[in-house]
Amino acid sequence: MNTAIILAGGVGSRMGVDRPKQYLIVKDKPIIAYCLEIFQNHSAIDKIVIVVSEEWQDYVEENVAKYGLTKVCGYAPAGRTRQHSIYNGLKCTQDNAPDTDICIIHDAARPLVSDKIINDCIVGATEDDGAMPVISVKDTIYQSADGKKIDNLLKRSELFAGQAPESFKFKEYLDIHISVSDDEIATTAGSSEIAYRHGMKIRLVEGSERNFKITTIEDLETFETIING
Amino acid sequence: MNTAIILAGGVGSRMGVDRPKQYLIVKDKPIIAYCLEIFQNHSAIDKIVIVVSEEWQDYVEENVAKYGLTKVCGYAPAGRTRQHSIYNGLKCTQDNAPDTDICIIHDAARPLVSDKIINDCIVGATEDDGAMPVISVKDTIYQSADGKKIDNLLKRSELFAGQAPESFKFKEYLDIHISVSDDEIATTAGSSEIAYRHGMKIRLVEGSERNFKITTIEDLETFETIING
Repeated sequence: MNTAIILAGGVGSRMGVDRPKQYLIVKDKPIIAYCLEIFQNHSAIDKIVIVVSEEWQDYVEENVAKYGLTKVCGYAPAGRTRQHSIYNGLKCTQDNAPDTDICIIHDAARPLVSDKIINDCIVGATEDDGAMPVISVKDTIYQSADGKKIDNLLKRSELFAGQAPESFKFKEYLDIHISVSDDEIATTAGSSEIAYRHGMKIRLVEGSERNFKITTIEDLETFETIING
Repeated sequence: MNTAIILAGGVGSRMGVDRPKQYLIVKDKPIIAYCLEIFQNHSAIDKIVIVVSEEWQDYVEENVAKYGLTKVCGYAPAGRTRQHSIYNGLKCTQDNAPDTDICIIHDAARPLVSDKIINDCIVGATEDDGAMPVISVKDTIYQSADGKKIDNLLKRSELFAGQAPESFKFKEYLDIHISVSDDEIATTAGSSEIAYRHGMKIRLVEGSERNFKITTIEDLETFETIING
């Protein structure tokens, strides 16, 4: 069984608007609902867990009812970092969807993920231990320990920017979180990072520019343009 | 003496418009003119060399006259890669501004570079061997030789995305280009990369989100918004 964990715990916004980005309304619908509908309508997804901050849970529950998101089986509280939120989502999955084989972790603010990416991630986590969509890196990236002089050159062709959803063998991934220190969870920069570091084999699958995270006003405008056709 | 080499050799556009991005008109002025004016008006810049494709040279010369860009001392032909264009710019600098101590290489399509960044680059190249503005990397970057599985984790705090202008001790930087193979020039991803690889000490200075390269329609709209106040 495959469970999607949707991260909607963020409460801030860098956009200078009155609500977190995943709750902004585009064409009468909050962004999170666009995202949830994709997982609701995907035949390979059985259950959905939503990680949400306390003050927004009622709002999310209303929308879950309004849009007929019948796969939603539980709500987990937001954590103090993204990875803490993921851990909360894993525990909620354990409680509400204990038969989960693969968990697939996505950002509510990435409402244009394709069915193909979701598929590829599930297949990757089934055949290997986890999978993550990536896109190539456009910038020339330099490595510097102190930020003052170049220490190392990196081949651009070998660098990949991680997107979501990241998908994992559920029990293995949960067990890592149980076994590590809180500090390790706090300092994890990507959800595949902690998996890779603890020996899980992570497959890279082809992401998409379209699968961007809505962060800035420009991102929001791009999403609006796409939704309005 | 400090010479700016402005790269305007690109002939394509990913924007689906009829001209390369650096020649698009914003508020009655081509983007390249905004860029050239910054170097014309900067007290630490003595000369300017422009790398330009043959079909656009007349147009650029007209604008150099129109906007009183009196520091422009020569034009170099565009090369088949960005680094070949830089090499052409270096040779043109040798011919037309032979007293150059520091060359400072910038993209015509980055018209919002600040005086401070230019200053910092010149100071950096004077005190070390070269300098480059960088910004921190927002994505989680993974290293993979084959693009199929993660080979290595990279600390985000140690990764920096290179911007322009890049600044170098002129003779040293030119000599590297004379000594290396054409293939090495062709496969250089960043102008500081070839310098670092051949032993020049490159200082990283603080870049700016505002110093972006105009590449997409969204970038163009951002620039228009800024110029229109």
